[in-house]
Amino acid sequence: MPQPPEFDDAFHDRLHDLLVWRRDVRHFRGDALPPGTVEDLIAEATLAPSVGHSQPWRFVTVDDPARRAAVREDFLACNREALDDFEGERAKLYASLKLAGLDDAPVQMAVFVDNATQSGHGVGRKTMPEMLPYSVVMAVHTLWLTARSQGIGLGWVSIFNPERIEAILEVPEDWSLVAYLCIGYPQEEHADPELERRGWQDRDSQASALLKR
Amino acid sequence: MPQPPEFDDAFHDRLHDLLVWRRDVRHFRGDALPPGTVEDLIAEATLAPSVGHSQPWRFVTVDDPARRAAVREDFLACNREALDDFEGERAKLYASLKLAGLDDAPVQMAVFVDNATQSGHGVGRKTMPEMLPYSVVMAVHTLWLTARSQGIGLGWVSIFNPERIEAILEVPEDWSLVAYLCIGYPQEEHADPELERRGWQDRDSQASALLKR
Repeated sequence: MPQPPEFDDAFHDRLHDLLVWRRDVRHFRGDALPPGTVEDLIAEATLAPSVGHSQPWRFVTVDDPARRAAVREDFLACNREALDDFEGERAKLYASLKLAGLDDAPVQMAVFVDNATQSGHGVGRKTMPEMLPYSVVMAVHTLWLTARSQGIGLGWVSIFNPERIEAILEVPEDWSLVAYLCIGYPQEEHADPELERRGWQDRDSQASALLKR
Repeated sequence: MPQPPEFDDAFHDRLHDLLVWRRDVRHFRGDALPPGTVEDLIAEATLAPSVGHSQPWRFVTVDDPARRAAVREDFLACNREALDDFEGERAKLYASLKLAGLDDAPVQMAVFVDNATQSGHGVGRKTMPEMLPYSVVMAVHTLWLTARSQGIGLGWVSIFNPERIEAILEVPEDWSLVAYLCIGYPQEEHADPELERRGWQDRDSQASALLKR
């Protein structure tokens, strides 16, 4: 039997630093990642928890210029529509935000949930079927933290019509888009979210409240 | 300006160990966690990413014996129904699995998404509204990894009628259940999932495949 590791105080402090400095990156340097990096990140991501050990995550890298252009076009269309929801100063601020690194990031990766997977035999998702995509979210978050620990930034873009992305990438019918990721070296490092720094949204005290029942 | 940390090879190795030894725990020792542990875990969880910096996670600890009994009853009812989906050896195996630590874990915590939050001003969730609960999932996963790094186990129970749990805990109308967590010291440490060890579900090679587009 392998012995479980003891995680010491120094590790806790570093893990805290990782959580503090993990960012949603939208400003990437254009240089490529070392060969094998994407495969290594996926291997770590598959260590994520999943409902009933269903492992429903499916990874797709996007390199074809025509597909990348179509993805970018969908983002731009959705972003224009979103801008219409705001007025005055908010609209100006929204228009000034950079919400995706699609033009610069060397790696683009879409992550899907396989709704038809038989793995796990349905355990834990009969009354809460959303546990299947939730499992994929934890794989994405695992990949994100692992990347950041290697100095690699990740940005999760969600301003898309998911069905359009599924069509552009010609994935199996039973797969649904969970996340579209831009991955590469960040131009800058920050301990605070860009949306906080730019005055869009502060820390919310409600979010750290504890209700007792 | 604070300087970003450099994460060295030793940290990568420890982070990998953490991912490998993070488990969904169902067998808890009954001893209490040190005072302040839950609050510290929540503080770390709020460092998770969230769409538009919306921070929509809401934490509720459950200590009242009557509420705990009602939660347990809902689990048992849902679990009985789930058992009906299986036949023969699978049904026997299902019945033998321990799928929740509700009787032993010293801490029970429900985590909700606040669907009515104005934080984030809707950014990033117009076309993908599921980004709001997905943000809560990343907070749960952050809490899980932090707990494990302190030798504390967590089990995510999803065999519930979410509306029933919302009623039992009398949370605001706009909150939806994302996760119900059992938290405490694990009886045993393992590097492999219990469902794998018990013969329910193996590693799925599809889950580490990479599709290129």
